[in-house]
Amino acid sequence: MSKIKLGIVGYGNLGKGAIEAIKQTQDMELVAVFTRRDPQHLHLDDQNVKVAHISEASDYKNDIDVMLLCGGSATDLPEQTPYFASMFNTVDSFDTHAKIPEFYKSVNEVATKNNTTAIISVGWDPGLFSINRVMADAIIPNGENYTFWGKGLSQGHSDAVRRVTGVKNGVQYTIPSEDAIENVRSGENPELSTAEKHNRVCYVVAEEGADQAAIEHEIKTMPNYFAEYNTEVNFISEEELKRDHSKAPHGGFVIRGGNTGAGHKQIYEFSLKLDSNPEFTSSVLVAYARAAYRLNNEKQFGAKTVYDVAPGYISPRSPEELRRDYL
Amino acid sequence: MSKIKLGIVGYGNLGKGAIEAIKQTQDMELVAVFTRRDPQHLHLDDQNVKVAHISEASDYKNDIDVMLLCGGSATDLPEQTPYFASMFNTVDSFDTHAKIPEFYKSVNEVATKNNTTAIISVGWDPGLFSINRVMADAIIPNGENYTFWGKGLSQGHSDAVRRVTGVKNGVQYTIPSEDAIENVRSGENPELSTAEKHNRVCYVVAEEGADQAAIEHEIKTMPNYFAEYNTEVNFISEEELKRDHSKAPHGGFVIRGGNTGAGHKQIYEFSLKLDSNPEFTSSVLVAYARAAYRLNNEKQFGAKTVYDVAPGYISPRSPEELRRDYL
Repeated sequence: MSKIKLGIVGYGNLGKGAIEAIKQTQDMELVAVFTRRDPQHLHLDDQNVKVAHISEASDYKNDIDVMLLCGGSATDLPEQTPYFASMFNTVDSFDTHAKIPEFYKSVNEVATKNNTTAIISVGWDPGLFSINRVMADAIIPNGENYTFWGKGLSQGHSDAVRRVTGVKNGVQYTIPSEDAIENVRSGENPELSTAEKHNRVCYVVAEEGADQAAIEHEIKTMPNYFAEYNTEVNFISEEELKRDHSKAPHGGFVIRGGNTGAGHKQIYEFSLKLDSNPEFTSSVLVAYARAAYRLNNEKQFGAKTVYDVAPGYISPRSPEELRRDYL
Repeated sequence: MSKIKLGIVGYGNLGKGAIEAIKQTQDMELVAVFTRRDPQHLHLDDQNVKVAHISEASDYKNDIDVMLLCGGSATDLPEQTPYFASMFNTVDSFDTHAKIPEFYKSVNEVATKNNTTAIISVGWDPGLFSINRVMADAIIPNGENYTFWGKGLSQGHSDAVRRVTGVKNGVQYTIPSEDAIENVRSGENPELSTAEKHNRVCYVVAEEGADQAAIEHEIKTMPNYFAEYNTEVNFISEEELKRDHSKAPHGGFVIRGGNTGAGHKQIYEFSLKLDSNPEFTSSVLVAYARAAYRLNNEKQFGAKTVYDVAPGYISPRSPEELRRDYL
């Protein structure tokens, strides 16, 4: 069987994760990584991977089945997805929730016109969490969805901590409130604000001689970021920070509590506990590359989301095997 | 918008649940329940529901979009699904795992020939659990799937308890082992037998004067059913049995633990906690009726499984709404 040929655009954490994820498959192979940097000076962990400049991508039109777009949502993807979707099937992880309809429209136009298939907003949220919110809502109409994030390292909140006077370095974890989760799991369908659903825990390295009490107070009272939350501040050494807090864990929960018939409680729950957020996200992108390839073979052109992709399309296994061994 | 018109075949627990589930939707309506019994003598909880004899179903070919087949897997569905799929789009909950390939083949032949769409083996296992086993496997190839069932009332094991001499009445719950679940959640990917994954708890009403120690011993040493398991036997009164054990709860967990990249642990988990197993199962059937209807409109004829159904197809919401509010 010939393999599905993939390209990767962007050599950040997501692109690196995608290289590893492709290696774990039997049915896909990596053709090249495309970068905006000078390919000569890009040092790859794996020397066997071919690197090319992003401007050369169009030369690969006949050699790549699906392009994995591993750039960021703020500035990269709004430009890159329409550009690459004019030449390739694509999968991206666009996650600026509020701009998804507009993004979908621009990608759909290009992909429809060029007979390509572009699956947008793939990953775990948006992505797997989105699927579960919709399926739970469809199956238990009389109920309530809850999404909890964490335990996860939050880049934005870590940055906020590091901007505080006297802070040398630091990280922030968003942690779902155990009480809130238990409350939701009990089927009570409580009203919960984001702050009630999550706690914030900071690990801070203070500058020598800095006033730790002042730092703690400034963090805990910072509006929008921390003031509304139950926030914990821990002071640690630079060594401890490096040793214990250099990974990028994340995860979370989608829970729907609802009722059927004469008031029987039904609790639907999906959760992820990830040691590496970017590696997991890129693993989802790689699995959905199969779907982009297959949908395109079926002439299902245009922009798609995870809602348009049947589960069997992301699996390397045949329909017969799935029915026999997994159903 | 005109509603999707449904029929129900069978007025057991699943059929009753389906009547309730349809009421919770805005976009579907029930046309009639079909029964093998004399419709005159079938007492329905809801007097507004129309009842007809199963032999009259063919008269409804133009009035029903999707037929929900609510019979059992042992003898009903192997006959009923091919029969009804010759006239209607269908959804069923065929769950004899070993016979699914053969069942699929016989249904697919009829449905393909008659331009109908028959979604087989819908529910939570097979069904939602199957989806999660396959998606987790596709996303984290380097890992292991675990399925735990319970806490759930097991009909077969309850029957076995009731056959013991001196037992007047009783029920048995299958309970997933907390230790085993924690072990799997830790990402250790342990080897676990079914017996190691589950415990069994019995609530027994003894005949007056019966030897409770002898009953307990006979249950705990019963081969295949209990001997291999950690089994607990509790004696209760007939009143307690009625009061506390007359529901049909069930549920379970699908967990995949695996590694990405240089050994980062990733834990994927899906779980259900159901107060009423038949009501939840029928709610899944009703949601998939939307998919059967839509797939048929797209001329996707033949037998399908949950692997062939994109998540958006089971939702009452428009693709625009899903992308805007749920992605």
